[in-house]
Amino acid sequence: MKKIATLFAAAFVGVSAFAQQALWGGPQVESPVLNADGTVTFRYLAPKAVKVTVSGDFLPTRKIQTPYGEFDAPGVAELKEGQNGVWEYTTDFKPAPEMYSYTFNVDGLNLIDNNNIWVNRDIASMTSTFIVPGGRADLYTVQDVPHGTVSKVWYDSQAAGFRRRMSVYTPAGYNPCGKTRYPVLYVLHGIGGDENAWLELGRAAQIMDNLIAQGKAKPMIVVFTNGNISQEAAPGENSTGYTRPTTQLPKTMEGSFEASFPEIVKFIDSNYKTIARKQGRAICGLSMGGFHTLYISLNYPDMFNYSGMFSAAIGVSEQQMCPMYDNFDAKLAEYFSKKPALLWIGCGNTDFLYKSNIDFMEKMNRAGYPYTYRESEGGHIWRNWRIYLSEFVPLLFK
Amino acid sequence: MKKIATLFAAAFVGVSAFAQQALWGGPQVESPVLNADGTVTFRYLAPKAVKVTVSGDFLPTRKIQTPYGEFDAPGVAELKEGQNGVWEYTTDFKPAPEMYSYTFNVDGLNLIDNNNIWVNRDIASMTSTFIVPGGRADLYTVQDVPHGTVSKVWYDSQAAGFRRRMSVYTPAGYNPCGKTRYPVLYVLHGIGGDENAWLELGRAAQIMDNLIAQGKAKPMIVVFTNGNISQEAAPGENSTGYTRPTTQLPKTMEGSFEASFPEIVKFIDSNYKTIARKQGRAICGLSMGGFHTLYISLNYPDMFNYSGMFSAAIGVSEQQMCPMYDNFDAKLAEYFSKKPALLWIGCGNTDFLYKSNIDFMEKMNRAGYPYTYRESEGGHIWRNWRIYLSEFVPLLFK
Repeated sequence: MKKIATLFAAAFVGVSAFAQQALWGGPQVESPVLNADGTVTFRYLAPKAVKVTVSGDFLPTRKIQTPYGEFDAPGVAELKEGQNGVWEYTTDFKPAPEMYSYTFNVDGLNLIDNNNIWVNRDIASMTSTFIVPGGRADLYTVQDVPHGTVSKVWYDSQAAGFRRRMSVYTPAGYNPCGKTRYPVLYVLHGIGGDENAWLELGRAAQIMDNLIAQGKAKPMIVVFTNGNISQEAAPGENSTGYTRPTTQLPKTMEGSFEASFPEIVKFIDSNYKTIARKQGRAICGLSMGGFHTLYISLNYPDMFNYSGMFSAAIGVSEQQMCPMYDNFDAKLAEYFSKKPALLWIGCGNTDFLYKSNIDFMEKMNRAGYPYTYRESEGGHIWRNWRIYLSEFVPLLFK
Repeated sequence: MKKIATLFAAAFVGVSAFAQQALWGGPQVESPVLNADGTVTFRYLAPKAVKVTVSGDFLPTRKIQTPYGEFDAPGVAELKEGQNGVWEYTTDFKPAPEMYSYTFNVDGLNLIDNNNIWVNRDIASMTSTFIVPGGRADLYTVQDVPHGTVSKVWYDSQAAGFRRRMSVYTPAGYNPCGKTRYPVLYVLHGIGGDENAWLELGRAAQIMDNLIAQGKAKPMIVVFTNGNISQEAAPGENSTGYTRPTTQLPKTMEGSFEASFPEIVKFIDSNYKTIARKQGRAICGLSMGGFHTLYISLNYPDMFNYSGMFSAAIGVSEQQMCPMYDNFDAKLAEYFSKKPALLWIGCGNTDFLYKSNIDFMEKMNRAGYPYTYRESEGGHIWRNWRIYLSEFVPLLFK
């Protein structure tokens, strides 16, 4: 029995090696390697290189000066050339459990690790990624627990005038024709993101599976919208064909998406077994999605009982640039008069939006409005947003 | 209104550029570019490079000698260095409408195009990809037509002893609680593939959307199984964490997966609005999946009315290595005695499995068994498998 598979695999790999894989640059060395002692080894095959470095958020951050002020940037480490052109670097520390991103730099070229098939796209950048298991990182990986279903679903957007896509997580055991109804959490991405971002970089399906299995979160439906209302779906998955992701899409922060939210909620309530009232709905988002979350919550104060603003891009709203954003103070008063169960704010202490979030909270303090604040280390990064989601979700629908 | 988005985007991009994107190597030049005259331009920023080439299946193939015989390999073209370290190559021909894969080679390093976020994984290799629209390639792209839903679904596999994942396409208009029942096509991947392969490299969701919208295919449910029964789900999406894709997984071609197929069909019939009988079921697969298709069809002759073998890895079955594979002639006779609606065989004229497929058809000719054969140009490549799926699907459930 083994013979047939071995024979075929050998022939296949043989042919492929010549016809495809050798040309395509398949795995040549093992990288990254999570060593038994907790260190991590990175390797890169580059026989002609003069200098090879690895940069990533597993390394201690370094301070960099920018026109926008001082910021944390991922650290950099040098690889050393060994046998046969294989460059190597092993950490002299044990990276804490976490999901990390990294790239190599080979003589000035920024490159992903072509021996690692775990690749994430963040806006228009590709990075290689790995997860050090244990601790909170175990929320980010597939565990031996019941898994929800993740679907890519299209809806007819009246607001946009064309079909648009969202991602929908239904929890394990969800029966579309059953009697059980579920609360719904809407999760919004940041600028340059799309309906895939939270599932890929945010590990949201794994976080939901694991929190529900551990009894820390109620089983719920989770909807990942695409907040770029000029866009049907993620780049490469829409009818414009090859389009480079950009943070400069039209109509991202001028109210159109926020104003369209009722049609999204209506679609979900019409097609899923939802608890179709305020008590059964939550919304959260990161960066631009935190901004969207705030204005959707304020403009539709009867829609959501729980709102989460993660590193929210707030602080410019006072300019009253469109109906969604004007009358801010009055809307805030009306929102709180309806006693939402939770307004949750998370921000990193080095985030470039830190001050605007602090300002917003001071404004709420002056008015005596209740909210929950979670300050974390670091800046405007996915590590924080995974943590915020993991902490926000257990507070919902209790 | 524009001001807020622009201000925020500028700040965000500014910070990101320093904090992330400059390090991660975001887009620096535009590549590839589909020019108005039908040519395609490739660019790569590599200021210190001595030689940069591009290899891909958009270039005329070249013959290469291997221990397994002579094979077609993708062509290679040289880029020329221009201003500011940007290397460039423009085809002197117009690539026909098709989905293409390519990689760069910079001084001996095989690299994907880090300015192109369209990246596909084929087994353990990453390639950049682009689509020249028009002709049959318009089947492979998202068009302005109703779209089906693609879901990642887990099921409890009794055969494997653990949870396993499949991808399920439900056509536009599918109502899980409605009265309409749909036929089901099961689509199987090749060695080293998984439940994602047909959706990513095979563009199967787009093919189904477009064929159905054009009235060329009946609305149907399409199930993409994972044929590696030792594996829960695609690499990186299962509980083993970071695992390198391999063609050497245990239990891929020794009957276990084929024997487990009834539990897959039962799961689908229990959870979807299916036409749960032979007349409502089809199966097809590429390479190893064509082999699986043949043996599933033969061992369960009452299960499928339509079977498609795409570049099938057959020809070693006579070794009678397990119950699924023995008594081949008797099973073939029984299979045909039950008058399946269609046995469809597709193979490329330079495929390394061409001869074994011809041998199988000659065997059927001698016995007088009916089948349909489609021979195409080229070898063991995704271009052929997309074509075969596009031609096979319109023949089903008529």
